[in-house]
Amino acid sequence: MGLSIGVDIGGTKIAAGVVDEDGTIVAEEKVETPAQDPAALAAAVGEAIVRLRKDHDVQTVGIGAAGFVDKARATVLFAPNISWHHEPLAARVREIVDVRVIVENDANAAAWGEFRFGAGADVDDLLLVTVGTGVGGGIVQDGSLNRGGFGVAGEIGHLRMVRAGIRCGCGQYGCWEQYASGRALVREAQDRIRVGMKDAAPLAAMVDGDPERITGPMVTQAAQEGDPLACELIADVGQWLGEGIASLVAVLDPQVVAIGGGVAAAGELLMAPLRSSFWRALPAGPDRPPTGLRFATLGNKAGMIGAADLARV
Amino acid sequence: MGLSIGVDIGGTKIAAGVVDEDGTIVAEEKVETPAQDPAALAAAVGEAIVRLRKDHDVQTVGIGAAGFVDKARATVLFAPNISWHHEPLAARVREIVDVRVIVENDANAAAWGEFRFGAGADVDDLLLVTVGTGVGGGIVQDGSLNRGGFGVAGEIGHLRMVRAGIRCGCGQYGCWEQYASGRALVREAQDRIRVGMKDAAPLAAMVDGDPERITGPMVTQAAQEGDPLACELIADVGQWLGEGIASLVAVLDPQVVAIGGGVAAAGELLMAPLRSSFWRALPAGPDRPPTGLRFATLGNKAGMIGAADLARV
Amino acid sequence: MGLSIGVDIGGTKIAAGVVDEDGTIVAEEKVETPAQDPAALAAAVGEAIVRLRKDHDVQTVGIGAAGFVDKARATVLFAPNISWHHEPLAARVREIVDVRVIVENDANAAAWGEFRFGAGADVDDLLLVTVGTGVGGGIVQDGSLNRGGFGVAGEIGHLRMVRAGIRCGCGQYGCWEQYASGRALVREAQDRIRVGMKDAAPLAAMVDGDPERITGPMVTQAAQEGDPLACELIADVGQWLGEGIASLVAVLDPQVVAIGGGVAAAGELLMAPLRSSFWRALPAGPDRPPTGLRFATLGNKAGMIGAADLARV
Amino acid sequence: MGLSIGVDIGGTKIAAGVVDEDGTIVAEEKVETPAQDPAALAAAVGEAIVRLRKDHDVQTVGIGAAGFVDKARATVLFAPNISWHHEPLAARVREIVDVRVIVENDANAAAWGEFRFGAGADVDDLLLVTVGTGVGGGIVQDGSLNRGGFGVAGEIGHLRMVRAGIRCGCGQYGCWEQYASGRALVREAQDRIRVGMKDAAPLAAMVDGDPERITGPMVTQAAQEGDPLACELIADVGQWLGEGIASLVAVLDPQVVAIGGGVAAAGELLMAPLRSSFWRALPAGPDRPPTGLRFATLGNKAGMIGAADLARV
Repeated sequence: MGLSIGVDIGGTKIAAGVVDEDGTIVAEEKVETPAQDPAALAAAVGEAIVRLRKDHDVQTVGIGAAGFVDKARATVLFAPNISWHHEPLAARVREIVDVRVIVENDANAAAWGEFRFGAGADVDDLLLVTVGTGVGGGIVQDGSLNRGGFGVAGEIGHLRMVRAGIRCGCGQYGCWEQYASGRALVREAQDRIRVGMKDAAPLAAMVDGDPERITGPMVTQAAQEGDPLACELIADVGQWLGEGIASLVAVLDPQVVAIGGGVAAAGELLMAPLRSSFWRALPAGPDRPPTGLRFATLGNKAGMIGAADLARV
Repeated sequence: MGLSIGVDIGGTKIAAGVVDEDGTIVAEEKVETPAQDPAALAAAVGEAIVRLRKDHDVQTVGIGAAGFVDKARATVLFAPNISWHHEPLAARVREIVDVRVIVENDANAAAWGEFRFGAGADVDDLLLVTVGTGVGGGIVQDGSLNRGGFGVAGEIGHLRMVRAGIRCGCGQYGCWEQYASGRALVREAQDRIRVGMKDAAPLAAMVDGDPERITGPMVTQAAQEGDPLACELIADVGQWLGEGIASLVAVLDPQVVAIGGGVAAAGELLMAPLRSSFWRALPAGPDRPPTGLRFATLGNKAGMIGAADLARV
Repeated sequence: MGLSIGVDIGGTKIAAGVVDEDGTIVAEEKVETPAQDPAALAAAVGEAIVRLRKDHDVQTVGIGAAGFVDKARATVLFAPNISWHHEPLAARVREIVDVRVIVENDANAAAWGEFRFGAGADVDDLLLVTVGTGVGGGIVQDGSLNRGGFGVAGEIGHLRMVRAGIRCGCGQYGCWEQYASGRALVREAQDRIRVGMKDAAPLAAMVDGDPERITGPMVTQAAQEGDPLACELIADVGQWLGEGIASLVAVLDPQVVAIGGGVAAAGELLMAPLRSSFWRALPAGPDRPPTGLRFATLGNKAGMIGAADLARV
Repeated sequence: MGLSIGVDIGGTKIAAGVVDEDGTIVAEEKVETPAQDPAALAAAVGEAIVRLRKDHDVQTVGIGAAGFVDKARATVLFAPNISWHHEPLAARVREIVDVRVIVENDANAAAWGEFRFGAGADVDDLLLVTVGTGVGGGIVQDGSLNRGGFGVAGEIGHLRMVRAGIRCGCGQYGCWEQYASGRALVREAQDRIRVGMKDAAPLAAMVDGDPERITGPMVTQAAQEGDPLACELIADVGQWLGEGIASLVAVLDPQVVAIGGGVAAAGELLMAPLRSSFWRALPAGPDRPPTGLRFATLGNKAGMIGAADLARV
C-alpha cells in the first residue's frame, strides 16, 4: 500500500499532501481554490497531485470536500461553498492524472483520520464533532466509516436543538450549529457588545466598540486571559455541545466522542462545561457504559490524512 | 442453518417461536413473565425452548428484551420493566438448554427482522421507529445491525426535542417519546377532556367523562370514525414524529425509515402529517437523495423473527 | 369638547382627521411622510392641521406614531421607521399651530379607539392585539389606557415565545411577532415554496415560483379560496396568537381581547384556531371567568380615532 | 382612617394583625387554618378579628388569600390549597364581626403592601415578583392595584416560558414557575444528586444521599457557604427569572420590579444573574428608559400589611 495522497478542498485553499501508512504527512502543496469554476478546480487538484507524484510513488488519491458526496464516492451532489452541482469530481481528476481517486465528505474524512491515527486510534466506534464556524461530524462504527444509505450521513450540525429556533442557512430552524459553533460564539459576543452590557467592555475594547469585528479566536483569547464574559460565552457553547452530544450518544453509542475544529482551541474552558452538561443530559446516564469525551488530536490535518487513508482501502 | 428460535420477553408475556429461513414462524409458545425473579424467568425461557425443540431441530436461540444489552450479546445491563441488574441471561438459559444463545435489545431485534424480511428487505440501510407507549428504534447500516460501541445504540426515543421540556422517565427533559408516542396521544386527549374543550365531547363520551380511562386505541378508533379532535391529536403525534425523524435522517442517512408499533395502526392519519413535517424539517432537504418513509410490515412479531435470525449468524 | 383631530403618522403616509364625540371621522387629509426629516415632518403635520381647522373648530390634536413615547405624551424617544431621536414632536407642532397636542404610541391610540368606539365599547378592560407585519398592542384597564411607568407599556409583540428562538429585529430571540404575524405567514409560505412541497404548488403558481413575491394578503386570499396549505399557514399563525394571548390574559386579565390588523382579514380561518389554542393554553382555564375574544371593528382608522379622543381628556 | 386589620390566610396558618397608617404591625394573632371547612375557617378569621379589636379600635379588615378573588373583592372563586368554591368569604366574616371586609389575592395584597410601604414606596408603577415554591405577583399601575377585568390579573407564574415544556400543576406546559422557583431549584438539585454528578457531592452529603430530602433553603445555605453547584443552581433560577421579567417589562413597563419570596433570601447570588439576564433579554433594551430591579423589603408580612391598607380605601 505505502503512500497515498490526501486532498483537502476548502473554500479558499486546496491543501494536498503525501501521507504514509502511519498517517504522517511527508510532503505538502497548497494552492488557491477556484471556487467558481469546477473545471479549473479539478485542474488545480490534478496539478497538485502531479507535482507531489514527482518525488513520491503514489497510486491513490482521497479528496475531502464540504458537501454531499454520493455513495459511490465519486460525485459531489451539492456543496455549500463551491459552485458544484452533481460534479463528477473523481472522473475529472482521473482525466488529468491516472490514479485511483475517491471523494469523501471532509468531516467524514477527518473522522476517519482521527479514528486511524488520532483520538480514536484505540477504539472501534468514534464520533468526531468538529466545531468551527459551523458544526460538522463523522461517524465510525465497528471500524467502518458510516457513510449512510446515500453517502450523506453525519450532518450532525443540523440536529434540531430548538423547535422554531434560530434560522439556519440550511433552510431550517433551531439547528445545533446555530448554538454550538464559532458562529454562535461570535453572534452572542456581538449581542452583548451591542446592548452595551457592562461585562462586555473588555471585548468591546478589543474591536474599538465595533461588534462586527469580533472573531471567535478573539473571544477565545480573551477567555484564556481571564475575561469573565468571554469565559461565559465559551461555556455556553460548551453546554450546547454537551446537550447535543448527549442526544447523539443515545442514538449512536460511540465509545469515544472527539471534539475538534477551531473552537476546540479553547481547551478546558470549553470541555469542562461540555462534559458537565453532557453527563447531565445523557438519557439513562447512570445505567449506561461510560462514553469517553476527548479532544481530537490531528488538528486541521485530520481531513487530509483521513482522505489519503480512505483511498488506500 | 435452517430453523432458529426467537424469544420476545415482554413485561407481562414471553413469546417464543420457531422461525424458518424465510422469516416465517412455524411454531409458537407463550408463557407469563416472572418479571420479579430472574432465575424463574430464565427457567421459563428455557422450558419454552425445550418444548419447541421437541418437534423442531433447532440449535440457535435469539432473545429480545427491552433494556441495555452488552456488546457481547450475553448480559442485560439494565431493563426498565424487569428486575435485571447485569443479568447473565444467555449463560442462565444455556445452563438449561444446550443451544447457542444470543441476547439483543428488542427494538434492535425488530429492526433486524424488518430489515431481513419486512419493510427493509430491499435496502441496505434501514431505520426502524417503533411508536408504542414510548418510542424505540433500531438502526441497520450497510447490512449490519448497528449495536454501538457498548451495545446500547438506538435509544432514539430519548433524542431531545424540547430543551427544558416535558419530564421523561429516563430522568431527562423533552425526550422525543414525550411528544411522539402513544403516551403523548393519551396525555393530550386527557388534557382536552379535562379542560372541557367542546371538541373533546365525543372522546369524553367514550369514557363517560373520565379522562383516566382514555387509551391510545380509543383515540385511533375515534379518528378512523372521523372525530376531528382525534384526527388532530394523531396528526400532532405524526408531526412530532416527522420532525424527530428529520434529525435522525440528517445524522444516519438511512435509505428507508419504517414506522412500526401500535400507534402505526392509525395508518395514513398518522403518516400523512408525518411525511409532510418530515420533508419540511429535513435539513437541506431539496439537495438530499430522497429517503423512503414506510410502515413496518411484521407487526409485533418483528422482534421474535429478528432475534431468531440474529442468532443464526 | 366637541371635535378633535387625530393624526396617524405611518412610515409612508400621514393621515389626519377631524373626529367627533361619537368617534366618527368628519373630514380627512393625507400627505406623504418625510420620514428622514423631523422638521419637515412636523411641518407637514402642522399644515394638515391648519387645513382641517379651516372648516372645523378644533382645539385638540392627538398624534399616534410607532415607537416609544415618553410619559408626558410629548416626546418620541425612539421610533423604528422614522429618524426621530428624543424628538419633541408635540412642541414642534405647537410652534406651527396653537392647539393642545398630545403624542401617543400608535397601538395605544388604536386600543383607546377600540375601547371608546369599537370592540371594547361595552367593557372596562380591553387588550387590543394588532396583527400586521409585526404584532403590536394596547392595554386599557379599569377604563384607563395603561401607558406604563415610562410610557412604553404594551410591547406585546416582544413577549418571548421561544427561548433561543428566531432572531427578531429588536435584538432578541423568539419574540411573539416572529411566529404570529404577517411576516411569519409570509416566511412560512416562502419556506414551503422553496422546499418544493407539493401542497405549495398553488401558492407557488401565484408568484410564478418566486417565493420572494409572496405577500400576506395573497396567502389570505388563497386560504379564502380554499387552498389547504394557505389555510394551514393561517391556522398556524392563529395557534401562535392564541398561545401568546393566553399568557397575556394570565397576566392582564382583560374582559375582552380584540384582534385587529391586516392579518385579521382572514376572519374565522384565523380566529377558529386562535380561539381553540387560547382555551387550551390558558392557565387554570376552567376556573377563570371567561375572557371574550373578538375582532377589532375600526380597521386602520382606530389609531386616528383613538388619538383624537385621547387629546380631548 | 387610622388602624386596619390585615389577615393572611395560608395553607397551614392564619395570621392577622393590626396595622397602622405607616404600615407598622402593632398587634398580631396566629391560628391554624381549618383548610377543609370553609365555615370553620371563616369563624377562625372572625374570632381572630374579635380578639384584635378588644385592644384596638378598627373598623376595616382586608383578607389576603391564594386563589382567584372576584372583582367585587368579596368572593373567592377558586383556591389551590383550601376547599373553597365560590366562597362568599367577606359575607361570612361580616356575619361574625360587624366590620368592613374586603378580600384580595395574597400576591396582589403583598404588591400593594410593597407599593405603599416597601420597595415601591417611591414610584407609581410597581411589579412585585414573589419567588417561593411557585412564582406569584402583583401589578400596581399609576398608583392603583391592577386587579384585571375579572379580578384575576397578575398570574405571572404561568407565563409560558417553554412551548411543550415541563408540566405545571395548572394543567399547562412550560409555565415560568416550573423554571424560576424554589420548586425548580429543588428539582434540579435532586436531578444532580440522582445522576451522581461529582459536583453534587456536597449537596448529597447534606441529605445523606437522599435527594428527596433536599430543600430550597439547604441549596441557598450551601451556595452562601460557597458550594459551586449550589451557586450555579441559584444562578440558573436567577437567569430564568430575568428572562421572564424581561417579557413582563415589555408588556407592563413598571418603573420598578421588586423580587420577594423565600428564594430572594439568596441575595446577590440570585440577583446578579437575574439582572444580567434581564438586561440581555429586554426587547429594545438600550432604547428603553431603565427599569429598576430591587429586592422587596417587607418579607412575608407584605400581604398582611397590604391587605390591611387596601381595606382602608
